[in-house]
Amino acid sequence: ELAEERPASREWFEGLSEADIAFALECMPFEQRLTVWQAVPPALRGAVLVELHDEHRRSLLKAAPPDALLQWLGRTDPEDLLELMDDLPGQLGRKVLRRLDQEEREQLQAALGYDDNQLGRWLSFNVITAEAETPGRLFRKALRETGLPEMTDVIVLVDEDGRYKGCLSLDAAMQTPTQAPLSRFIDPDILPLNPALSLHDGAQKVHSADRAMLPVVDENGTVLGRFTARDALDVIVEEQEKQMMQLSGGGLEEEDLFSPLRRAVPKRSVWLGINLVTALLAAWVIGLFEAALSQWVALAVMMPVVASMGGIAGSQTLGLAIRGLATGQLGAANVTSLMRKEMLVGVVNAIVWAIVIGLVASWWFGSAALMWVIAFAILVNLLAAAAAGVAIPWVLSRMKIDPALAGSVVLTTVTDVVGFFAFLGTASLVLKFVGA
Amino acid sequence: ELAEERPASREWFEGLSEADIAFALECMPFEQRLTVWQAVPPALRGAVLVELHDEHRRSLLKAAPPDALLQWLGRTDPEDLLELMDDLPGQLGRKVLRRLDQEEREQLQAALGYDDNQLGRWLSFNVITAEAETPGRLFRKALRETGLPEMTDVIVLVDEDGRYKGCLSLDAAMQTPTQAPLSRFIDPDILPLNPALSLHDGAQKVHSADRAMLPVVDENGTVLGRFTARDALDVIVEEQEKQMMQLSGGGLEEEDLFSPLRRAVPKRSVWLGINLVTALLAAWVIGLFEAALSQWVALAVMMPVVASMGGIAGSQTLGLAIRGLATGQLGAANVTSLMRKEMLVGVVNAIVWAIVIGLVASWWFGSAALMWVIAFAILVNLLAAAAAGVAIPWVLSRMKIDPALAGSVVLTTVTDVVGFFAFLGTASLVLKFVGA
Repeated sequence: ELAEERPASREWFEGLSEADIAFALECMPFEQRLTVWQAVPPALRGAVLVELHDEHRRSLLKAAPPDALLQWLGRTDPEDLLELMDDLPGQLGRKVLRRLDQEEREQLQAALGYDDNQLGRWLSFNVITAEAETPGRLFRKALRETGLPEMTDVIVLVDEDGRYKGCLSLDAAMQTPTQAPLSRFIDPDILPLNPALSLHDGAQKVHSADRAMLPVVDENGTVLGRFTARDALDVIVEEQEKQMMQLSGGGLEEEDLFSPLRRAVPKRSVWLGINLVTALLAAWVIGLFEAALSQWVALAVMMPVVASMGGIAGSQTLGLAIRGLATGQLGAANVTSLMRKEMLVGVVNAIVWAIVIGLVASWWFGSAALMWVIAFAILVNLLAAAAAGVAIPWVLSRMKIDPALAGSVVLTTVTDVVGFFAFLGTASLVLKFVGA
Repeated sequence: ELAEERPASREWFEGLSEADIAFALECMPFEQRLTVWQAVPPALRGAVLVELHDEHRRSLLKAAPPDALLQWLGRTDPEDLLELMDDLPGQLGRKVLRRLDQEEREQLQAALGYDDNQLGRWLSFNVITAEAETPGRLFRKALRETGLPEMTDVIVLVDEDGRYKGCLSLDAAMQTPTQAPLSRFIDPDILPLNPALSLHDGAQKVHSADRAMLPVVDENGTVLGRFTARDALDVIVEEQEKQMMQLSGGGLEEEDLFSPLRRAVPKRSVWLGINLVTALLAAWVIGLFEAALSQWVALAVMMPVVASMGGIAGSQTLGLAIRGLATGQLGAANVTSLMRKEMLVGVVNAIVWAIVIGLVASWWFGSAALMWVIAFAILVNLLAAAAAGVAIPWVLSRMKIDPALAGSVVLTTVTDVVGFFAFLGTASLVLKFVGA
């Protein structure tokens, strides 16, 4: 049957939303994705591209001839265009802008003046504004004509020159008496967002405002658009996905499930290279104690236990500190309190595990000397881990480096180096002065 | 001055929202927090408790005498009570329920019938419902009297018996002609949520519906309440915070920045204990090759490099797979494609790093034998890491174990064991048949 051989035919897409198509595309291996993409109706392509993750989007945009691109983009609405603009190859962005009508072009150009991670860049335009002195009845009549976009529970008031005056809730606007001006019911608690705000901060403000939307207003009082709870959800879900990969320890921030080899390999190599350097540093420390290792082979056997217990204990503190820094609850005022508490927890844990591991080692190798050496090393390393778990993210965040990305590598380097030094160094001293 | 000695006086709280107070409390070390908590005006305490994270809330609830608790809870609104109910000590929950009026009690009891992570448990009650045949004008008049809660852009229609009939957008309700019934404009695209849905799935549905809210309706057609975009944000932000700690490798899912020692130590010990078992497993593998290690000390030095390169390479694949499983883009249909792609990336990376590390080792120790042995071990371990990075989260998710929690430990156990086996095993063979 012909239909079975061409599963990606036009009918295949009927009844699917743009998000559904994007999701399906992302699930496919790269070659299959290109084939299916060719079959997506051109009128839908712009909207599908918006729904894709950056990596996927770029690879599909690259694969398309510019003329065809210009054609689909002509049918894409301005908000979607804004999202795609950065990823368009060469002069195409400018060409697309020239084709818009003046109002849309100006809106887009204002938004393009902001940075990739600023609110001004990602706002939506369908915000309801009204002249501040409009009487209640007239407003309601006008509203029935223009319609009410979803996610609207705030009405934005402007003066005669179109400058921002304040906000009132949709409820208040509905209840404003027939002849009374809307401005009488301005709600001073509804604060507009600055377009220069970061996406993350904007999402948090919408979250804590408990509104479906907040207007975005620049320093000159121009109402640029709005940022909705849905936009906030987008921002946080995307952060969450990045975080999931970043924190799982491989140092990747963004990679397509099926990115082609030539993109996947270099991305991963960076982090593997950094790790090799830190691993060689640890190896160098071990190398300092070659004499002890060749005399006493139990050291080589138990060495990874000391390092890995330190790594886990440190990661626990690190996780707590990273979350505290991200939520803003850890700051200069309480970082020493946290350090004190973590050192206390560290002391208790260190004593417990030093005893347990000391006993295991002495039972395994029948050596009291090894018991004392490893117990001491665990004690030192778990204390160092607690201190490093607070200090590393704190220092990184002062240096404006994201502790979630780099914290884990730095921490395990510290716990490896301290662990090997404490364990092999003490063992060397024991060998020299006491004997195993 | 007296005022300086009692900073936590009543005036201190003026102008602070409940969320502000909760945030400040969470920033404080435990003892200071108790002191400040005593000074929070009793009328605010219920609402502040709702804003606190679980750990903090439980510790403050424990510290309060039951009579005082009952008094604050009397002034707390039903939605907030619902959140607190699980954490109330002993019979207090039942006592609080008995004090409510019948309607509120029934609402709360219905919600309490659902599980802690189900939508039915966390919904809010201020949903606007209307009888389906209400004419447009009458509806609008009624709406002006009852008022419009924030985050409302959907109106829920019920039949004469109060059973769910459908939804229409607020916009459509505003535009409905004077005499026409609302039911004529029911929007079949607005689908209600089932109260048995998980919080995570509910949040995703609100996210993709692009509405400020969706109604929650049970199998009998009873409208239980609504789930808003703000609720969805709450769910996702909380997931994100948990994830941040969980994935940073320490295995903690939830811990208060300043939890008291007696809670912090046992929580962390569980994961340290699990790690000890896996570290001892790796040590046992090393122990199998004591003979080789005592002959050839360079093995002990380079051993951690083999293990840690495998660990990082595996974590990269693991991160990708965990995200794919969480977003639903990785499934039975494409897991073999992912495995194939990751093995390909693994082969390329394995060859590159086997050469690099082989050369480093041969330069460092001046031994061609070591070069070949470590290059081979890196090759084997990086391939095993790629396979394990896909297989482990896949198998864990089939076993209904959260791969984000357990994946990392299992993976590093595999890469440690495989790495040590490949490296020390090959070295033993070389020693036996060739000589270092």
